[in-house]
Amino acid sequence: MDNSVSPLPEPEAPLAMMEIEKTPISTPMHDMPPPPDEKRYDEDVKSTWQCGSWCEYIFVVVVSSILLLAAIVLTVFWIIYYRNGYSLEDNKLLFNFHPTLMIGGYIFLSGFAILLYRICRCCSHLIVKLCHVFFHACSIPCIVIGFLAVWESKNQHDTTHFYSLHSWLGLITCGLFVFQFVLGFFSFLILLCCDNATQKFRSTMIPIHASLGVATFMLAIGAAVTGLTEKALKDLGEEKYSGKENGTFKGFDEEGIIINTIAVILIGLGILVPFAVRRTNSPASFKVYVTDRI
Amino acid sequence: MDNSVSPLPEPEAPLAMMEIEKTPISTPMHDMPPPPDEKRYDEDVKSTWQCGSWCEYIFVVVVSSILLLAAIVLTVFWIIYYRNGYSLEDNKLLFNFHPTLMIGGYIFLSGFAILLYRICRCCSHLIVKLCHVFFHACSIPCIVIGFLAVWESKNQHDTTHFYSLHSWLGLITCGLFVFQFVLGFFSFLILLCCDNATQKFRSTMIPIHASLGVATFMLAIGAAVTGLTEKALKDLGEEKYSGKENGTFKGFDEEGIIINTIAVILIGLGILVPFAVRRTNSPASFKVYVTDRI
Repeated sequence: MDNSVSPLPEPEAPLAMMEIEKTPISTPMHDMPPPPDEKRYDEDVKSTWQCGSWCEYIFVVVVSSILLLAAIVLTVFWIIYYRNGYSLEDNKLLFNFHPTLMIGGYIFLSGFAILLYRICRCCSHLIVKLCHVFFHACSIPCIVIGFLAVWESKNQHDTTHFYSLHSWLGLITCGLFVFQFVLGFFSFLILLCCDNATQKFRSTMIPIHASLGVATFMLAIGAAVTGLTEKALKDLGEEKYSGKENGTFKGFDEEGIIINTIAVILIGLGILVPFAVRRTNSPASFKVYVTDRI
Repeated sequence: MDNSVSPLPEPEAPLAMMEIEKTPISTPMHDMPPPPDEKRYDEDVKSTWQCGSWCEYIFVVVVSSILLLAAIVLTVFWIIYYRNGYSLEDNKLLFNFHPTLMIGGYIFLSGFAILLYRICRCCSHLIVKLCHVFFHACSIPCIVIGFLAVWESKNQHDTTHFYSLHSWLGLITCGLFVFQFVLGFFSFLILLCCDNATQKFRSTMIPIHASLGVATFMLAIGAAVTGLTEKALKDLGEEKYSGKENGTFKGFDEEGIIINTIAVILIGLGILVPFAVRRTNSPASFKVYVTDRI
């Protein structure tokens, strides 16, 4: 059985992979620390170029990218076409920044930031890391403005904050996102200055950062689907949402279908993106996760 | 970096693991099919007994089990204490079977069926498989009765079927569950009769079955959280849910907190259970997923 998904050779293989190649099969890895002056990110890993690997790589990368784009495009379309677009003056239109910027920040930008580790097979690992930080950094203003939009909109309506499941999930996601950003920035960029001295610490942090990153993404999707359900029920109302007019079924509401479709796309991303980054980067005999790379 | 999570020895190691041990590190696995008469499930894999591995094993198994139990117990408590319990006669109480049986079938039983591969380290792999099928088989009547409960309840209210995001997700989950059950039953139990002849086919099916299984579990959680949001908004209403009485905030509604807590537990399971079964079963130098076992 071959689970490898490496259609492209890996010009800059990570330390973990190198270690496995160089370690005798009966020797536990932790007994053999790499020499501090070992040259990293410069060897190629033997990749399998099977048809199945190609298909899976293309499927994961292309479908994930299409779904990420579809989610944000469909959200903008929904807001402009059915919710009268955006405005800072009108309170109802002020709220519309919230779903757009939250899906833009937490799903679109963060999703691409995660997927970068899967897409960029030929770039320097440091460049991938910097792009990963850049995408996450871009999502911060989106999240902050998106949060302020709903806060201000609720204040103007005198609505209670943080009572719903959507807001609970959003709050946990926000806390985890900030924690992850600080942890990731400190561990993988700042500590890179003293590369060899901090290598062991950084390699310990990788599975934690990767697991928490996927968890944050899943939480964001959970928050988004509950938010979309709330929005559909509150704005459309149960009767219109269920396609009824004066008690008679007239066919499903167009806006309801659009909202459901956005949510189904998000759920699809919640399954596909974690699957993508947990796949191995190397042939079956060297199972190293994409997210194991330092 | 050592990602192994094997606090207990593995008395019946699977073929995939055996293959890796026996295959020279430079030889791709697919070039060396195992001899058809090779004895399987009878060798031990060298396990690491590090503190971190123990902690992770206990954390994953114990916390997942507690969350699975908490989800179903809290749902039953919510229905009995706040929703007047169950009845086949009263239409409102008939609906109450739906959330209980769906969480019981899709989350509690299916969750334990998935987790079995992580919990049962000392049992025969065939017994684990049979238990996995048994738990899933037990969830079928729950899901069928849960579905009939909401179908009948909606018919009596003359409500449209399948308009909401919750019902869309539920329908996709149901289809995927049936597909998975048929696929799993056929591939891993029926084809076991001609063990060696079907071994290659079955090993190909494993990652597909495992990935789709995790996807079904995630979809079920997506369906559950949207369903809980719907229920909270429809039954409590926005004002009561947000803790207001005649426009004045009086403190969060107890039932709302219970509903939110059930959903947060489910989201926690959606992160923890896939994480648990995707961890390796062996030391870091032989990265074999729990779900790679035939």
